[in-house]
Amino acid sequence: MQQLKIGDIAAARKLDRRDVADLARGCAFLGSGGGGDPQTALMEIEAALEQGGAIELIDAAGLKDDAFIAPCGWIGAPTVSLEKLPSGREALQGLRKLEEITGRRVDAVFPIEIGGSNGLAALLLALRSGLPVVDCDGMGRAFPESQMVIFNIRGHSASPAILTDSKGSCVVMETHDNLAEERLARAVSVAMGGICHLIEYTGTGRQVREQALLGTVSDALAVGRSMREAHEGGRDPFEGLFAALRASSQFSRAGVLFDGKIVDLKRETRDGFAVGRAVIDGFGGGGRLEIDFKNENLVARVDGAVRALVPDIITVLDRETAEPIVTERLKFGQRVRVVGASAPAAMRMPEALAVVGPQVFGIAEPYRAIETLNGWGT
Amino acid sequence: MQQLKIGDIAAARKLDRRDVADLARGCAFLGSGGGGDPQTALMEIEAALEQGGAIELIDAAGLKDDAFIAPCGWIGAPTVSLEKLPSGREALQGLRKLEEITGRRVDAVFPIEIGGSNGLAALLLALRSGLPVVDCDGMGRAFPESQMVIFNIRGHSASPAILTDSKGSCVVMETHDNLAEERLARAVSVAMGGICHLIEYTGTGRQVREQALLGTVSDALAVGRSMREAHEGGRDPFEGLFAALRASSQFSRAGVLFDGKIVDLKRETRDGFAVGRAVIDGFGGGGRLEIDFKNENLVARVDGAVRALVPDIITVLDRETAEPIVTERLKFGQRVRVVGASAPAAMRMPEALAVVGPQVFGIAEPYRAIETLNGWGT
Repeated sequence: MQQLKIGDIAAARKLDRRDVADLARGCAFLGSGGGGDPQTALMEIEAALEQGGAIELIDAAGLKDDAFIAPCGWIGAPTVSLEKLPSGREALQGLRKLEEITGRRVDAVFPIEIGGSNGLAALLLALRSGLPVVDCDGMGRAFPESQMVIFNIRGHSASPAILTDSKGSCVVMETHDNLAEERLARAVSVAMGGICHLIEYTGTGRQVREQALLGTVSDALAVGRSMREAHEGGRDPFEGLFAALRASSQFSRAGVLFDGKIVDLKRETRDGFAVGRAVIDGFGGGGRLEIDFKNENLVARVDGAVRALVPDIITVLDRETAEPIVTERLKFGQRVRVVGASAPAAMRMPEALAVVGPQVFGIAEPYRAIETLNGWGT
Repeated sequence: MQQLKIGDIAAARKLDRRDVADLARGCAFLGSGGGGDPQTALMEIEAALEQGGAIELIDAAGLKDDAFIAPCGWIGAPTVSLEKLPSGREALQGLRKLEEITGRRVDAVFPIEIGGSNGLAALLLALRSGLPVVDCDGMGRAFPESQMVIFNIRGHSASPAILTDSKGSCVVMETHDNLAEERLARAVSVAMGGICHLIEYTGTGRQVREQALLGTVSDALAVGRSMREAHEGGRDPFEGLFAALRASSQFSRAGVLFDGKIVDLKRETRDGFAVGRAVIDGFGGGGRLEIDFKNENLVARVDGAVRALVPDIITVLDRETAEPIVTERLKFGQRVRVVGASAPAAMRMPEALAVVGPQVFGIAEPYRAIETLNGWGT
């Protein structure tokens, strides 16, 4: 993707139907096993595009310092989103409420997390509002809780947070404590039927430029496009995946962690999260890989030795089609390839690891970079 | 209590410490076994009065049509309120947020429910804000859920609803559905630590005059005062209680339902409510009374025959001191007198019974007025 900066004006690129499908594929990979299936969001966007809408992707570098920017996404159980369709009005209602309470017009939106279905949510809001999408996100993947975001790590307040549901209810939250905000938003999402739209961590153009994870929409788009093109060209889609990751701005260290067959799976729903372990045996006696997950994949160990740790990306893909398999769809007997990729540098800093690192998830091993653990490119 | 109406101006009366203690006693009776212990609220108000504050009680008849009036109270588990003290800033923060989002100054406040500790909540807000308290409430007793209020019965919207907690968090809700509002507010109150301050069903002076249960603060005050005066004069406090109820504007049909000793008690916490049954045997083989409760007392049966049904008031009092005993403090062996009183007429209309009548609580018997069931004054 090319971004031409013209003075103070952000270079814009229109996204078409094929781009959006590519983006969905890339977001599914970056979800690290979580973030929800992007298919429903993709269908909604395709329908809106057919009605003549347009999506404009702009570079954060061109944002004016005092522009007003709104990250958005959905909070709740991905399982619910499969059965409970949105009304389609949630996001725009939230945006208008934000404008009403702040007295400011929003200039652009972006995905709060690039992983899974939330990687597409901002596109739908862009279509409904006519606003551009900034090429960035707040997590560089999917995470299970709303405070696991670069803006919280950098001391930015979540407030005001605006939650809207399919019945037209709207809740505005103001807190001094981003963890309290997560607790309140989680409770409201349950009371709203299990899932709702969320706008939070709004900021200025300057804040987005300085704090957000830049270029991640382009990265996800490139990943999905590269996989499609490899498939169309009769090549191995994994080849396309790795080529795109290595050329990406935020996920450049990537490789295969393991090939094998799922031989055991423990999965339970605990406190609203899908928690469990997948055990994968290598082909021809090639060792055993175990993945622990809480919605997202958190740690991968081969024969007991750590090979990847959150926040680095661990995604299980179908070994033939390279389709990412989310944790709730893992099944005994699946033949899979487990792929790892480095998290954005900002998510690996000590202050970030205090919010999204292994210890937060109860993992004993301290964080070590995936490229170090696997000897990639050293 | 005297109310002198001077033209368009509401007659005001200053409430002193003794008045507030009397009011607390009256609210405890009107709580029908629920609504929480008023003691903590009473101590807070006494402390604020000592610092020179004043509480002005005004008659709804004098409210200007377009005055902006805010009912208030606390939502959550009364058991939590015994252990988690408020910061004292919740109510005023909610009031200021209401003014901010509506762009209007609030002219007066009143208790959303006159039963239990919520009967006093508006007084504390009056002290903090300098606003008068309107002599009315929305329930005429205590009820477990926020939509069980005359304003909902009369088709008024709960929105905006403003919830505030001891840590300074604030949540504003807008819904088209007052039941959804209850569900959301309940979830937020749990996430806020089990209890929080709530302002909802705000309205104009005219709406309050036309919809609220008028005179109930005076009624509660008169009940408490009459009991105190009987006690001080060496008379039976029950005599004072009945004299005040019969002279009250909203609770004039009242009498003893039963005298006896608690011989069995089943009580469990289900879905956040105290649900159970108290069994009371009459002295000297005088039959058996059973009370079913859900936070509040809902139905009283003597030897299987219904003697009182929600929304009429059923309160268990200590037989010697006439102190009301809330459902969570009922104990085996207590010697008690069970007193009933008629609910305000507006709460007995068919449209009210659809929201607060026996069927709503899963009671098989259709509503019949307490004075009919007991042959009082016919």
